[in-house]
Amino acid sequence: MQYPAPIAHLIDSYMKLPGIGEKTATRLAFYTLDMPDNDVQDFSTALSEVKEKLHRCSICGNITEKEPCSICSNPARDQSTIMVVEQPKDVMAFEDMGEYSGLYHVLHGVLSPMDGIGPEEINIKSLIVRLQKHDVKEVILALNSTPEGESTAMYISKLIKPAGIKVTRLAAGLAVGSDIEYANSITLKRAVQGRTSI
Amino acid sequence: MQYPAPIAHLIDSYMKLPGIGEKTATRLAFYTLDMPDNDVQDFSTALSEVKEKLHRCSICGNITEKEPCSICSNPARDQSTIMVVEQPKDVMAFEDMGEYSGLYHVLHGVLSPMDGIGPEEINIKSLIVRLQKHDVKEVILALNSTPEGESTAMYISKLIKPAGIKVTRLAAGLAVGSDIEYANSITLKRAVQGRTSI
Repeated sequence: MQYPAPIAHLIDSYMKLPGIGEKTATRLAFYTLDMPDNDVQDFSTALSEVKEKLHRCSICGNITEKEPCSICSNPARDQSTIMVVEQPKDVMAFEDMGEYSGLYHVLHGVLSPMDGIGPEEINIKSLIVRLQKHDVKEVILALNSTPEGESTAMYISKLIKPAGIKVTRLAAGLAVGSDIEYANSITLKRAVQGRTSI
Repeated sequence: MQYPAPIAHLIDSYMKLPGIGEKTATRLAFYTLDMPDNDVQDFSTALSEVKEKLHRCSICGNITEKEPCSICSNPARDQSTIMVVEQPKDVMAFEDMGEYSGLYHVLHGVLSPMDGIGPEEINIKSLIVRLQKHDVKEVILALNSTPEGESTAMYISKLIKPAGIKVTRLAAGLAVGSDIEYANSITLKRAVQGRTSI
């Protein structure tokens, strides 16, 4: 369909978002046209600012407005423990939990040879530099329980262990509130292997 | 979850779009963060421009970059026929069809007392003014087959008919390629009422 150029441009932009095809993009573009001017201007500003104001912390790789980020620059945090996570959202999840007081290192991805993502494409090098410079006692690998997450954890663990640093990973097992009946067999296997006395 | 301010701002903006809740908005915001700078800047520009460059044609109400729009200002179009539609997208659908050479009038909605939308809230007044000023022979009510569309058509038809202008509406019946088996009874009733000889 022949749309006026500004609408066609906006439809193209919406289509670059994940899970949004041409029909949804068109619906969103026409919806945008009917939104209050303020909201649309605000949306436009939010988009520019998210790129202009946020960057990766030079130490941990987490997204931040300040340099270094508020966690890396907080002397009250335990400097001897680094938790390695895949994404900035994971840092936020652990911070919400409120039980962890160490530092983080954000990989911004996991190793995935099928997608051409090797060690150079994710934030591993700066982790090694960090471990060489500072006195870190434990590295917690808090990566997702996916094949890519597991193999990335194995890769990092092999890099770090020779330096004598303790490497741990999160406990695997049944999610709290979940049913044994619906758990997959690998989860059950891990839960049995990691059983604790009560 | 505590997000950096620019991310929280973008999440809020995404949540103003229809069908996008907090989870999807968060996913989109983090996805935006990883998009190429150019694409995000382009998206931001598209949003501002859709509001700055497009406005409603003062004659027909369709969205346009020029004033009046390219259809209203085209002398080759049949000036004696006006097709009344709900949305700009409907104009584009009829233009794609390529069989209609008259003018349009875009209501930007339908009467819906339940949602507080009366005749003043949609673009009806300018239609009446247009009919008084110009020699229009036929008004085609091309509104959707919804209860609101039907009652809006009835309302406009009652306003116009006393002036002696011919008022028509689109044929109702079976969609081409559809199955009688799956048609609803109102559609079937209309199809029987409107049967034509072959």
